[in-house]
Amino acid sequence: MVANKAKVYLVGAGPGDPDLLTMKAHRLIGDADVVVYDRLVSDEIMALVQDGASRINVGKQPRCHPVPQEEINDLLVNMAKPDRKVVRLKGGDPFLFGRGSEEAAHLHANGIDYEVVPGVTSASGCAAGIGLPLTHRGLANGVRFVTGHCREDMPLDLDWRGLADADTTLVIYMGRANISQISIRLISEGLAATTPAMAVANGTKADQRHVISNLGEISAAAADVDLDGPVLFVIGRVVGLAGELGIELETEAVDDVLAAAQEVRRA
Amino acid sequence: MVANKAKVYLVGAGPGDPDLLTMKAHRLIGDADVVVYDRLVSDEIMALVQDGASRINVGKQPRCHPVPQEEINDLLVNMAKPDRKVVRLKGGDPFLFGRGSEEAAHLHANGIDYEVVPGVTSASGCAAGIGLPLTHRGLANGVRFVTGHCREDMPLDLDWRGLADADTTLVIYMGRANISQISIRLISEGLAATTPAMAVANGTKADQRHVISNLGEISAAAADVDLDGPVLFVIGRVVGLAGELGIELETEAVDDVLAAAQEVRRA
Repeated sequence: MVANKAKVYLVGAGPGDPDLLTMKAHRLIGDADVVVYDRLVSDEIMALVQDGASRINVGKQPRCHPVPQEEINDLLVNMAKPDRKVVRLKGGDPFLFGRGSEEAAHLHANGIDYEVVPGVTSASGCAAGIGLPLTHRGLANGVRFVTGHCREDMPLDLDWRGLADADTTLVIYMGRANISQISIRLISEGLAATTPAMAVANGTKADQRHVISNLGEISAAAADVDLDGPVLFVIGRVVGLAGELGIELETEAVDDVLAAAQEVRRA
Repeated sequence: MVANKAKVYLVGAGPGDPDLLTMKAHRLIGDADVVVYDRLVSDEIMALVQDGASRINVGKQPRCHPVPQEEINDLLVNMAKPDRKVVRLKGGDPFLFGRGSEEAAHLHANGIDYEVVPGVTSASGCAAGIGLPLTHRGLANGVRFVTGHCREDMPLDLDWRGLADADTTLVIYMGRANISQISIRLISEGLAATTPAMAVANGTKADQRHVISNLGEISAAAADVDLDGPVLFVIGRVVGLAGELGIELETEAVDDVLAAAQEVRRA
């Protein structure tokens, strides 16, 4: 990492497993003088930061924002110095729900160079970690990522009719707080309550857990198994491939659910 | 890589730059005895395969399928042996438009273990490579990935009305052959012709090229600059951030385009 001119690296830390860092991210993290990181960056990844480097936690939690985005933006500008290696580390991919572009724009406006290093997004990480695809011929010809998190005291403002599309896999990032409302709205707009659905917590990490159910039951099923950590929801016919793909199931109701999923697929 | 029982690794090679391989993919590729790979896997990545390993090219090109999927499925089953390290290497992420799940299902049905290693998908790679985000507060609250490639002699069967959503970034994989038709259908369903749009060829690689235009002009603009290699299209207001983010532009008409993009954003 050459850093003669002040430059900030906006780096994706991937879904959690340090083995799923990119080669480039791994090298930049190990060489950094300063690492500004979020709560979604795992301890195992932070352990790669060299001794003596500054670690700055700007972790944000839903409904609890310790550091406003504007302060993070200013922090990055102030930390950037010639010959200082500054890494802004974000869970997943910095340009997918990471607000990385706000930081990039602020750096650019202040004359600081930046470089974006993409990461494996949580949807890909969880899909691989569980063994269920995001697309599959005849079941899903595309995939859609939305965030289920909204600003405090604001209602979730999503295009419910557009989201209720049986031919597209729907992935909801940060959806735990609102999954009940999300399911009800999708069903209300015409997506079958029997549509297979999955919740994955701590995807790709040693403590990964998942529950497979259907749209009508996923909110209760996820609450029943008391998933810790960030939860990703996947809704769509692809989840019904669990049987064919030999996926281990954690809930009791799954035989019924998979039978129903097969019906949905045949329909 | 321990391989006592027969096992196949379905590995994402990421967007092209070998530095964007995951640590795990890099290690598996270097240790493999057999690598079965697609045309989207770059030469730089194939150079990581050890001497003496078997390299099997099952590359598929649009409208030209040298190896049918069923033969690839059978090949993987037949290559899998105890103590033989078999890697099935795919561009991007194996569970996003990679048909990886068909291979996984076939392996499972034949009693062969498999493991999926996710990769950085092309959308993330191209977004970072150019410096334009996939989501951004106030411009795009989600992103949608579809494939613009269709089976030979079949019309593109997409949910055009649902796709014509100004609040969602639309990413089209493998869309070069059909981008003209895609643009026209989206405009016809109500997406503004002035919506910013970008085409990226060979994203993240040394020969990366891009063109920024708008939905009405992107097909002609992409044809004008004669983009080689796989092309990814990004359509949505996020592309209009190019000015704020200091992105280099390759076409001449861009001042007009960005002015129009600003108008779209303000509207």
